[in-house]
Amino acid sequence: MRGSIFSTLAAVAISSSVLAADLKDTIQRNNEVFAQAYNAGDAAGVAALYTEDAVILPPGAEMAEGREAIAEFWQGAIDSGMKDLKLEAGDVEEQGDAVREIGRFTATAGENSLSGKYVVVWKKTGDGTWQLDTDIWNLNGN
Amino acid sequence: MRGSIFSTLAAVAISSSVLAADLKDTIQRNNEVFAQAYNAGDAAGVAALYTEDAVILPPGAEMAEGREAIAEFWQGAIDSGMKDLKLEAGDVEEQGDAVREIGRFTATAGENSLSGKYVVVWKKTGDGTWQLDTDIWNLNGN
Repeated sequence: MRGSIFSTLAAVAISSSVLAADLKDTIQRNNEVFAQAYNAGDAAGVAALYTEDAVILPPGAEMAEGREAIAEFWQGAIDSGMKDLKLEAGDVEEQGDAVREIGRFTATAGENSLSGKYVVVWKKTGDGTWQLDTDIWNLNGN
Repeated sequence: MRGSIFSTLAAVAISSSVLAADLKDTIQRNNEVFAQAYNAGDAAGVAALYTEDAVILPPGAEMAEGREAIAEFWQGAIDSGMKDLKLEAGDVEEQGDAVREIGRFTATAGENSLSGKYVVVWKKTGDGTWQLDTDIWNLNGN
């Protein structure tokens, strides 16, 4: 009996850590879709990955709410020549129907390499996919 | 009967919006405690408002984890002459045992006025109080 309780507990622990790894993989796949759309110059495609009333908080600008404003922001970033965006999920934690992701990004702007970090709160949609609901980032250097 | 079901629903709706207002007030009170400790030059007091393994993601620096590193960061900000910190909770949303706050801040650095925005994920502690668990911010201007 004791053995079986322990194996059950172990199985639960393993399955919950597998789920956590799955979740991080899922979020990282979403990051890759995001970067791919951005690097293809598809601002509307990027904006479609956010919830309807998502908020972005970009450095050097006011916060912006909603897909239209978000598409406009990313179009501006594309037009400014920011390229080669890469996003890398770090710590990913489920909180209710949301996921808090801490991640890192790199990009280039002309001859400059940019590196920074971000926090995204993702929300699960009706069809079980995740969308960005809050997105804030900054650069590691000046 | 119908009337009473409607009043019950109305009461539930009102009570949930009162709870949301209460939560925002609670978070804003915590912000005031944070700013008060910071403006008094008490970096350890600021760090004590975070969870043990909280992560801060400051602009112009690498992310830092844990109260010791967080105290060191805020001590650096105090030593750099950043003063008059004010924090203002904006949208506050409960997600499981966490709260996602979007807020704005102002501060001064010598003759410069700083204004920016932040996202904090708060977690409820054993005694029912809230602590900062993830804290990221940036400036609106350059």
